[in-house]
Amino acid sequence: MDLNADLGEGFGPWPMGDDDALLGVVTSANVACGFHAGDPSRMRAVCAVAAQRGVAVGAHVAYRDLAGFGRRYIAYEPAELTADVLYQIAALDGIARAAGTAVSYVKPHGALYHAAARDPVQAGAVLAAIRAYDPALAVLCLPGSVLLVEAEGAGLPGVPEAFLDRAYTPDGGLVPRGQPGAVLHDPAEVAARAVRLAADGEVVAVDGSVVKVAAGSLCVHGDTPAAVALAERVRADLVAAGVPLGPFAPRTP
Amino acid sequence: MDLNADLGEGFGPWPMGDDDALLGVVTSANVACGFHAGDPSRMRAVCAVAAQRGVAVGAHVAYRDLAGFGRRYIAYEPAELTADVLYQIAALDGIARAAGTAVSYVKPHGALYHAAARDPVQAGAVLAAIRAYDPALAVLCLPGSVLLVEAEGAGLPGVPEAFLDRAYTPDGGLVPRGQPGAVLHDPAEVAARAVRLAADGEVVAVDGSVVKVAAGSLCVHGDTPAAVALAERVRADLVAAGVPLGPFAPRTP
Amino acid sequence: MDLNADLGEGFGPWPMGDDDALLGVVTSANVACGFHAGDPSRMRAVCAVAAQRGVAVGAHVAYRDLAGFGRRYIAYEPAELTADVLYQIAALDGIARAAGTAVSYVKPHGALYHAAARDPVQAGAVLAAIRAYDPALAVLCLPGSVLLVEAEGAGLPGVPEAFLDRAYTPDGGLVPRGQPGAVLHDPAEVAARAVRLAADGEVVAVDGSVVKVAAGSLCVHGDTPAAVALAERVRADLVAAGVPLGPFAPRTP
Amino acid sequence: MDLNADLGEGFGPWPMGDDDALLGVVTSANVACGFHAGDPSRMRAVCAVAAQRGVAVGAHVAYRDLAGFGRRYIAYEPAELTADVLYQIAALDGIARAAGTAVSYVKPHGALYHAAARDPVQAGAVLAAIRAYDPALAVLCLPGSVLLVEAEGAGLPGVPEAFLDRAYTPDGGLVPRGQPGAVLHDPAEVAARAVRLAADGEVVAVDGSVVKVAAGSLCVHGDTPAAVALAERVRADLVAAGVPLGPFAPRTP
Repeated sequence: MDLNADLGEGFGPWPMGDDDALLGVVTSANVACGFHAGDPSRMRAVCAVAAQRGVAVGAHVAYRDLAGFGRRYIAYEPAELTADVLYQIAALDGIARAAGTAVSYVKPHGALYHAAARDPVQAGAVLAAIRAYDPALAVLCLPGSVLLVEAEGAGLPGVPEAFLDRAYTPDGGLVPRGQPGAVLHDPAEVAARAVRLAADGEVVAVDGSVVKVAAGSLCVHGDTPAAVALAERVRADLVAAGVPLGPFAPRTP
Repeated sequence: MDLNADLGEGFGPWPMGDDDALLGVVTSANVACGFHAGDPSRMRAVCAVAAQRGVAVGAHVAYRDLAGFGRRYIAYEPAELTADVLYQIAALDGIARAAGTAVSYVKPHGALYHAAARDPVQAGAVLAAIRAYDPALAVLCLPGSVLLVEAEGAGLPGVPEAFLDRAYTPDGGLVPRGQPGAVLHDPAEVAARAVRLAADGEVVAVDGSVVKVAAGSLCVHGDTPAAVALAERVRADLVAAGVPLGPFAPRTP
Repeated sequence: MDLNADLGEGFGPWPMGDDDALLGVVTSANVACGFHAGDPSRMRAVCAVAAQRGVAVGAHVAYRDLAGFGRRYIAYEPAELTADVLYQIAALDGIARAAGTAVSYVKPHGALYHAAARDPVQAGAVLAAIRAYDPALAVLCLPGSVLLVEAEGAGLPGVPEAFLDRAYTPDGGLVPRGQPGAVLHDPAEVAARAVRLAADGEVVAVDGSVVKVAAGSLCVHGDTPAAVALAERVRADLVAAGVPLGPFAPRTP
Repeated sequence: MDLNADLGEGFGPWPMGDDDALLGVVTSANVACGFHAGDPSRMRAVCAVAAQRGVAVGAHVAYRDLAGFGRRYIAYEPAELTADVLYQIAALDGIARAAGTAVSYVKPHGALYHAAARDPVQAGAVLAAIRAYDPALAVLCLPGSVLLVEAEGAGLPGVPEAFLDRAYTPDGGLVPRGQPGAVLHDPAEVAARAVRLAADGEVVAVDGSVVKVAAGSLCVHGDTPAAVALAERVRADLVAAGVPLGPFAPRTP
């Protein structure tokens, strides 16, 4: 099973999260490419450690919006979005190659993640960039999303991810943030869910029913010390349960 | 002989120069990479035409300064400069590859061109980026510059360029802008100098003496209609004089 | 009657339109404030000429999106939008005051103009900024827009504008761009419409019917030489028809 | 005596330092204006609290360089620098006025602080902006700097500041960072120096001699929890010693 998290999300003088600690936990790093966060120096630093530790490098592509951290929907023209995504993948891949690794997958960030999950136009624009750059790159997606369906339709390897700290509805969706119980905080519970997801491909929904969740990767967070501790607990419990950990999209040389 | 010019120097809603006309004149395009000018959509458009016409693509790397167009010296730390240059080369190269060509050389832009010409630290930072990305990339430089010397010392192919519209001193330097006669405007004269530079490797200096100038490329401009017309005249006269035209750094597949 | 146009929409090395010519035509200048276009040096230059010629200065406030020129909708949080708009008004007003004039009105630009015309949340966020800065500032709006209604509800002087080069529907709306005949190009026709709008408050719609249009300002463009020539013709014909020209929101000292 | 510190130096998703804690310590807040750090939402938030607590608001003006946090020298043309500084002062002042206070002084940040301390051209460009905006604004400067001398020559109130955590040379200069003992860390020692500076206008230099330092403000830092704690200790000891605290440039209504 794979663990992915967002990394390299500082910019200039401003750090965010504990990249180094997370690079000891995850098997795949979603690396910011400079449009919502990330700068070339940080990208180099993250890629160097990822290369050392065998962590896969993913391009965490986003709208051009540092002030909004890529969390605000922007009504891009598709061709502009394709060009912006292509630029980001290329920049990170070149930096990764200079560090002895390479980009092996792409994950849209923030508002683009959500837009590409439901809007075929934005999903298509993202996929056009990936196909133009390298059709062998995997696409890390929301399960059931338009992006996942379109990726598979386009012959690109789409990989759904599961969210360890989010409650699920009986039909396999996420309980919306803001609803009570939508976000889980107990490390033991979250880690237990991770083991069940990895071992059995299932999770207990809010109504107590058991839902099948086919996830190629488990998403963890690292923006607070508590989040890093939770991620470490998840990894430890997966290892203890005998779940083999490794990138869903290992770098092919 | 090679003709190079700056291209893709618009940004967002703002065009600059006539990229399409220039791509019919030059054999090498210095393409802006987004830091002083250029955006991903323009980079794609320029690379597509360059690929079609066999024009070599160079990364026109610069300080991060859109407002100042990369013309203001910025006191970068070397490691930051290396990372910023590496990012720019990688972004353009990925876009070029998606368009069926590739970056084959690097030329620093504006204030970075001048800083790298005289400051070993900034020159070294630029060269470190090139070496990290691909040591086979050529470096287009000011003749006699620190960058040229250091490139050759580092085993990178350094290529000096000549300036067709600039007057030369008897020792092969440029007459500083602002001095009378520093910039030449007569198309016939400029084209004649181009032919003599290409055929014989020499130019008549301001004092009437003949100077040897070993140039691997001739730099033309395209920011005004007059500049494009002058560049077209230069190309026509070179062709008429039987000078074979082609990139100094052709794309190697 | 007032004539307004967008000015100062270059950025750094990139000009846009002919600011100087337009400042000889209009009575109100919508000056870009640095978020979609405009930089402090251009803002100073435009304000200096506007002060000399008695042209009113309006803050042309926009989303933070240089690459997209403020033409892409961005899903701002209202408080963020209020702060960004307040910042832009304040920056321009300070520059205008240093030039001997002052901001006397606000006009949202591009995608914000359209969002504030139909979305009460974004309209409210813009109005909150204006009220926080100076409730005496006028708001230049699309006729019939949510922004106009909300401005009046909030006690701010809302001023609807008419578009000289756009065809009108029988109910006073604009024929959407892209439909045949949506944009008028004949200078004589456009100027004649301007005179009728100014003198009688009416315009001939696409179906030949006459529509009442209560406009406090007439919007002209200046992004091409033809547009400037058209604006000059409009002004000349208004003057010839005896229509007094002057800012709808003159600077109050 | 006045205590000043840099505030509002986050940007978008990235915080920096503990603005709220510092606003309980200082009497003057150097507020970032969006060019090296700071965004309109943060500027509003800081101004609101400053207005409540009677903390003076200063415009912490900087080069346009978010990625470099304004710490890199940029070779601006003077007129561009004047326009950029004027824009920043105006933006912050408008936001401050909307919050019930106003900018009462200007302090250059980072590389601009150092450039304006020794380069009459950049100092003059900063002062031109201040004079154009409001010649009553004070200028917070390095003691003995060109900026201080030129401010006084131009009739602007220049105010030198002292650095509590820095060692002094016998002639009243600062021991350069990097030399042993250049930065002081012991809260008791730093607070004692603050009291002596405030009460007697003198400090013990590295060689044990006593130096006269005429400071109108004492600069503290807030970028780490330890720095905030140190600033709180300084304030407490000043109060305990009976030193009256208040802004050197109170807002004049």
